[in-house]
Parts: sequence; C-alpha cells; structure tokens
Amino acid sequence: MRFKIITNILGLIVEVVSLFMLLPLGWAVLDKSPDARPIFVSMIIGMALGAILLLIGGRLSREEMRPKEALVAVGLSWILASAIGSLPFWLSGAVPTFADAFFESVSGFTTTGATVLANIEANSRGILFWRSLTHWLGGMGIIVLGLAILPFLGVGGRQLFRAEVPGPVPEKLTPRIHQTALLLWGVYVFLTVLETLLLYLGGLSFFEALTHTFGTVATGGFSPLNGSVGQYNSVYVDVVITIFMFIAGANFALHYKLLMKKDLTAWWRDEEFRFYLYIVLGSIATISFVLLKNQIYSSLAQTARYVSFQVVSVLTTTGFVTADFEQWPAYAQLLLLILMLIGGCAGSTGGGMKVVRVMVLLKHAGIELKKLIHPRAHYSMKLNKKVVEKDVILSITAFFSLYMIVFVVAFLLLSLMGLDLISSIAAVTATLGNVGPGLGVVGPMDNYSTLEAPIKWILSFCMLFGRLELYPMMALFLPDSWRS
Amino acid sequence: MRFKIITNILGLIVEVVSLFMLLPLGWAVLDKSPDARPIFVSMIIGMALGAILLLIGGRLSREEMRPKEALVAVGLSWILASAIGSLPFWLSGAVPTFADAFFESVSGFTTTGATVLANIEANSRGILFWRSLTHWLGGMGIIVLGLAILPFLGVGGRQLFRAEVPGPVPEKLTPRIHQTALLLWGVYVFLTVLETLLLYLGGLSFFEALTHTFGTVATGGFSPLNGSVGQYNSVYVDVVITIFMFIAGANFALHYKLLMKKDLTAWWRDEEFRFYLYIVLGSIATISFVLLKNQIYSSLAQTARYVSFQVVSVLTTTGFVTADFEQWPAYAQLLLLILMLIGGCAGSTGGGMKVVRVMVLLKHAGIELKKLIHPRAHYSMKLNKKVVEKDVILSITAFFSLYMIVFVVAFLLLSLMGLDLISSIAAVTATLGNVGPGLGVVGPMDNYSTLEAPIKWILSFCMLFGRLELYPMMALFLPDSWRS
Repeated sequence: MRFKIITNILGLIVEVVSLFMLLPLGWAVLDKSPDARPIFVSMIIGMALGAILLLIGGRLSREEMRPKEALVAVGLSWILASAIGSLPFWLSGAVPTFADAFFESVSGFTTTGATVLANIEANSRGILFWRSLTHWLGGMGIIVLGLAILPFLGVGGRQLFRAEVPGPVPEKLTPRIHQTALLLWGVYVFLTVLETLLLYLGGLSFFEALTHTFGTVATGGFSPLNGSVGQYNSVYVDVVITIFMFIAGANFALHYKLLMKKDLTAWWRDEEFRFYLYIVLGSIATISFVLLKNQIYSSLAQTARYVSFQVVSVLTTTGFVTADFEQWPAYAQLLLLILMLIGGCAGSTGGGMKVVRVMVLLKHAGIELKKLIHPRAHYSMKLNKKVVEKDVILSITAFFSLYMIVFVVAFLLLSLMGLDLISSIAAVTATLGNVGPGLGVVGPMDNYSTLEAPIKWILSFCMLFGRLELYPMMALFLPDSWRS
Repeated sequence: MRFKIITNILGLIVEVVSLFMLLPLGWAVLDKSPDARPIFVSMIIGMALGAILLLIGGRLSREEMRPKEALVAVGLSWILASAIGSLPFWLSGAVPTFADAFFESVSGFTTTGATVLANIEANSRGILFWRSLTHWLGGMGIIVLGLAILPFLGVGGRQLFRAEVPGPVPEKLTPRIHQTALLLWGVYVFLTVLETLLLYLGGLSFFEALTHTFGTVATGGFSPLNGSVGQYNSVYVDVVITIFMFIAGANFALHYKLLMKKDLTAWWRDEEFRFYLYIVLGSIATISFVLLKNQIYSSLAQTARYVSFQVVSVLTTTGFVTADFEQWPAYAQLLLLILMLIGGCAGSTGGGMKVVRVMVLLKHAGIELKKLIHPRAHYSMKLNKKVVEKDVILSITAFFSLYMIVFVVAFLLLSLMGLDLISSIAAVTATLGNVGPGLGVVGPMDNYSTLEAPIKWILSFCMLFGRLELYPMMALFLPDSWRS
C-alpha cells in the first residue's frame, strides 16, 4: 500500500468536486440567495482540503497502481466527495445535522435519490441545484470524470477505472482509458443536453428541466418538487422521462456505438439489452394486468402510463415517483422490490446487481439443471456468442452471495435499531440498490427524515456499497488492504 | 427413460407407505373410533394401487438406473406417497377438501408441519397418529426407508439414494447402499425410542410422547395439541425437545459414528456441525439480548428457555411453537426468517438450504474478496480439511440461484392470488424451508386452513421442492427428463 498515490488521487477528486460548486454558487448569486455564502465557504473548504492532500501526496507517481490501491482510492474518494458534498446542505442549515447532510450527499452522488428533506421546495435554487448536480457527477462516476478531464491520470488509471466500473464483462471502447472516459462522458453530456431541451420544450423552466434531467440520466431520482415528477401530471413529461430513464439504465457503450459509429442495431444485438427490455415489458404487462383487475385506475391508458413510468423508474433504480405504488396490490409491490435488486445494465448509470449478472446466474442455474439430466454431457455458457469462463461465473456467483450477505447484515442492523420488518427490508433494498423510495416508513410518499441518525449512517453506507458494487467499500474494511 | 423401472419403484413405495397405515388403524380400532373404517379403506386403496403399479412394472430390472430416471422416480414417489397419505384425512372427513388433505399429507411427509386443521384436538387418535407418522416416514426419507427394508432394491439404489439425499458432500457410511440406509434408520429408530422414553418419563401419555417424538426426530412439527408443545408449559419437556431437535438437525452420519463407532469427538471434528452450533448459539444470544432489552419476558431464565426452543425449532425447520414469536421485535422475526432459509445440516432430517451449502457460499465469497486484494495469489477452498473442487462450488452456487428463483416465483404467485406482502414471503419461506409456521396470516398462532385452494396447491409444491432439495421436482418439469 503506497499511501502517497492514494492521497494524490483523493486530492484531485476533492478539487474537481469542489470546483463544480461554482455552478450552484452561480444560481445562488443570481437569485441573491443567502445560501451563496455557505456554498462558497463549502467550496473553499473543499479546495483547501484538496490542496493539502495534493501537497502530502507530492509528485504524481508514474508507476502502475496495484488493484488494492485502486480499490481503496476509489472507496475513499467516494466517502470524501460525499463529505465535501454534504457541506452546502449542512452549512446552509437545509438539514439539521451532519448525519442528514452526509446522507443527502451520499444519496446524491450514488444516484440513490433518497431524501431527508421533508419540504424540498422550501430550499433555495442554489442548494437544490447542488443536490441534483451531485447525481450528475456521480452518475457516470467521479473517478471516470476525473479520468476524462485530467489526462495525466492515465497512468494507473486503468486500475482506477476498473475499480469504479467493475462490469463483469468489461467493454473496451478504446485502448486508452482517458479516451474511453471522455467518450462515455460525451454520450452522457449529449443525453443531458437532449433531455433538458425536450423538457424545456414541454414547458418546464430551465432550472427544473435541468435538475430533472440530472435525476434522469444519472438514474438518480432527486426532484426539486415535493411531489416528484408526479406533480406535473403531464403525459408528455412522463413519456420523455420514462424514455430517458430507460436509456440511462442501458449500457452507455451501446449508446456510443449507436450515436458515434452509426451502428443502428447495437442495442438489439446485445443480449443484456434484450433481456433488460424483456424484463421491462414483462413487468409492465403483468403489473398492468393486476392493476386493471383490481380497478386501481379508470382506464388502460392511465394504467399503462403510471405502470410504465414506475417499472422503468424502479428497475433503472432512478426512483422518480408518479404514483403511490404502496397502494398497489402485493404482487406489484413484490415485483418492484425484485426489480430494485436486479437494477440496470452493466455500463449504465443504474444501480442494483445489474442485468448481466442476473443473466449469468440464470444461465448457470439452467446449465446445472441440464447436467443433472445428462451428467456426462459438456455444457459451456455463452453470452453475446462468447464463452463465459468458469472463473467469471465463480466471481459473479460470489458477488451474488456477497450482495445477499450485505443485504442480510444491513437489515438485521436496521431491525436491531427498531425499524419494522417491511421498512427494514425495503429501506435496505432501496438504498443498496440505489433506488431511493422503498415501502413502509420509507415509501414513495414518505422520506428518510424521520429515521434516527444511526439508521441514516447505515443506509449511507448501503448506498456506497451498492453504487460501487461492493468491492471498493469492502476493501476498506479488510485489514489485508492496508498492509504494505 | 425406462418407465417400467419407475413404475416398479412407485409400486414398492406405495405398498410400503400403505402398509404403515396398519399402525394408525390399530389406534383407531383400540379406541373403537369410527375413523378405523376410512383408514382401512385408504390402506386397501393404496395397496391395490401399489399392486397395479407393480404389475405394470413387471420383473424388477437388474440394470443400473440412470440419474434422470432416479430423479423422476423420487419426485413421483413423493407425490404419490403424499396422495395416498392424504386419503385418511379426506375419507374420514377430518378436512373438507382433497386440496386440504393433500396439503396436510405433503406437510407431514416433507416434515414441514404446516397444518390446515383449525381444531387439532377434535380429531381421533387414529387420524392424529397417521398425521405424525407421515413425519416419521418422510423424515429419514421414504426412498431410504424402501432401500432399508427392501434389500433387493440395491441394484440402481445408489442413484435413488443420491436423488433423495443429495447432500453436496456425500458421506458414505458403507459401500453398500442397503446397509447405509439400514444404519441411518437404525440411528433414527434409536433416537425415536430414547426421546419417547424421556417424554413418557416426563409425564406425557404414550400416545403424546410418541407423536411429539415423531415431530421432533423428523424435524416435522405436527403436534396432536392445539397449543403445540407450548401447551405443556413444562421446562422438562421444552428442554428434552430442544435437545432432540438439535440432534435431529445435525448429520446422522455423525450420530452413527458417535453411537456405533464410539467416536466421541465426531460431532466436534465436523466443520459443518461446529458452524451449526455457532449459528444456534449466536442466534440465541442476540435474540435473547433484544428480548431482554424490550422486556418481553420477566427473567433471563424464561427468555433463554423460549428463545432456545424457538431458535432450534426454526433453524432445524421443525416448527414446534412455545412462544408467539410474532410478538417479538422485528430483529427476532427477521433472524428467524433467515434461519428458516439456512435450515439443518446435510444428512439430517432438517430442511432449508442446509448449513454446509451456506458455509460453501460464505467461503467462496471470502475467497473472491481475497483474490480482489491479491489477484495473482492462488486460493483453494477447504472443508473438513479436504479441498472443495470448483465444480462442486459451481453446483452449490447454482443450487442457491435455483432456490432463490423458486422462492421468487412462488411468492410472486402467492401475491398474485391476493396474499399480503409479509404473509407471501413468510408462507414461501416456511414451506420451501419445511418449517411450518411463518408470519402474518400463517404465523405461529395461526394455521393454513383459511388460505384458498390454489394457494394450498402452490405451497404443497413448495414443500416438495424444499424437502427434495429442488432437483427431483425440477426434473419432473423438464421435457428433457421424459425423452427416451
């Protein structure tokens, strides 16, 4: 473990995050809001801390990073970025305690969208803009952002990239990490501009168009409105956001091929994308059927609209709400809980276990069943027409076990703190999966403000574990990582 | 697929099960109960059906069975045994419909112990004896029973044995299957005699001592009393049953070594047993702590007594009840739900996923974490000081995925039928894990009688899937199994 390398990375990430506070500062100054001062102070603190870290780090090493160094650097970067990001909320008095501010900031960066703000609209545009911007920065990844805008990070960047974007079947867009990061951010910015424009044309103010876009393309879920997207009660807005959530939950490498390489069948040729589409369509169909049978909404069109929005919002782990799905029948609620666990595609901004991992688990189970009937036959797993090696399967099944272990430990801890059964299960699912709204006391019409501070800390760590797909966070807790 | 071999096995199993109806018939005749007649008719129907199957089967083949034939034979045997076993309940009018009778019978054979009898004590001793006897027959396995008492089944018996007792790391007591089956049944009968004696000395009638023993050593959970074991409110009875449940949830091969080979450290030397013990002690300690903190019981002694009984009852998937654990804090309920999923040790009469599988999953996850930090190091998994091959790990992880798939499919189906969220999750956990009582409408103080018929059918199949550790039941649904 070479601490100087890590300190260097941390310093750079903190500087980048702090500099982005210029944008909310701009809104606050424009609005002559008293929040300009706390935002400015937060930025100064962040930049000073970053400078100190860079000074300690000394000259950037030209050596390749080791995997464990990269994991620790990524884990600490996210914790530190969240801590710096929480300052505006804390110093402005938008939230009462640091635990709340940290929760809100982690929820932003990890694109969870769980909020402790009971009255969102009571806050200034500066604060709300920063809140939504944390989604956007965390959506494509703060390390990937660093790699995109700081080309000199290229050395050792490969390990950092892999630690933040672990995707079980990595998609290399270019052999150069800096360029890959730039291309991914390019697609991301393009989608951001496009959706903002469409929402603006739909009648939203520039501020609301932009903040809702951040919440969509990052699959975050923060809205500057108390009633989330549902407050507009607009079919146009619902449709635009549903489509962009769906796109944000798919692999950005495919979007790159489609947009830049004019590969029009890129989406359809990808096995994960097809499965993702089937999950969406299947869930919409069965939930709509149950809702129609129970006469929850008056028409098929209305049912389809609310169900499509909610299914895509939950599966992509965005967490925008247009309907109180806690009033839906048990089947709908259970299926939504399961979709939260599945999450988006690898290489998307979505959370959860990722569609491709679920596919590999299903295929693996299928092969073992076949072996049972024909013990002497030889089977190999294929994904996108390529053989998946046994070691990859083993590491994905281990990921599944670890995910379940984190899940179980977290909800045992929550229930120990006195949370009820359904709320414990739903709060862990919604934060570990980076969704946001759950069921029970953290349902779609509630928020996380009423929870006790220790519960907020546990859930903050659930969000970090989920966003970073476990390993960088776990590395922080393994003594082995810290040995020289 | 050679159907004649399967028909032969089915015929033999049906004959064996039907002949055991002589025992409840004896009780009914002794009591001059009108239920003697329906029990006698059930026995005749069973024996006639068995005879027909044997006639169709023709001469017993001397060829080795194929794995898929064994799986199908085992799956069908259990369904058929349950169907024959349901006749006394149905014909005597103890339950109103065949769906209820089948549910009760499956619940007996699979040692689940979930009941549809709202007023258990209203039934004759003949019926109640049969109900508890199904536990005992199913506990060690009806196929293993057949192998023990029908030595000529030895040919092809190995595949049958493996299909019913899949344990991931098979323990061979002797090279001869017939003898292994005999030894296992020997230990089982010994424990049965011992516990009956102890309960009888504790003041229970011979009938109640015997039926509760069946419920214990088979980790079943049926009690002839409305208030389950709690009705005695006796520390002595609680302690005896807790100890025997614990023993029944451990590997019988270890008991054999301890009893017959005087290998006094056999239990302790086994890694699975130690882990099983740690789970029991850890769960008792933490739940007791939470209950004491919440002042559920007045003293530590009382808390320890109820918690020990309930933890062991649930982990071993017995399902006897001495306390309404639905009144316990959420932590206790969640932990009990998780214990239901883990279940007993391999080679025990307990259900669930089995302790050894959970151990392998945990070790596998641990190894992948270590690999993360040291990507170039080589790690291999050891269990009881022997290396566990990659293929074994792969098949256990596949089992875990399949278990979760069955779990998810079953509770989506239940919620589709209109069951609420908690009850759906708890009913599937309690039946798939072969525990019995769950939470919600199927809680420890409730029973399954109020559920609709389709739900009873789904849960009956959950019990069969759970008891046979998925594969024999899955084989029945795979078209591949039926091809010649």
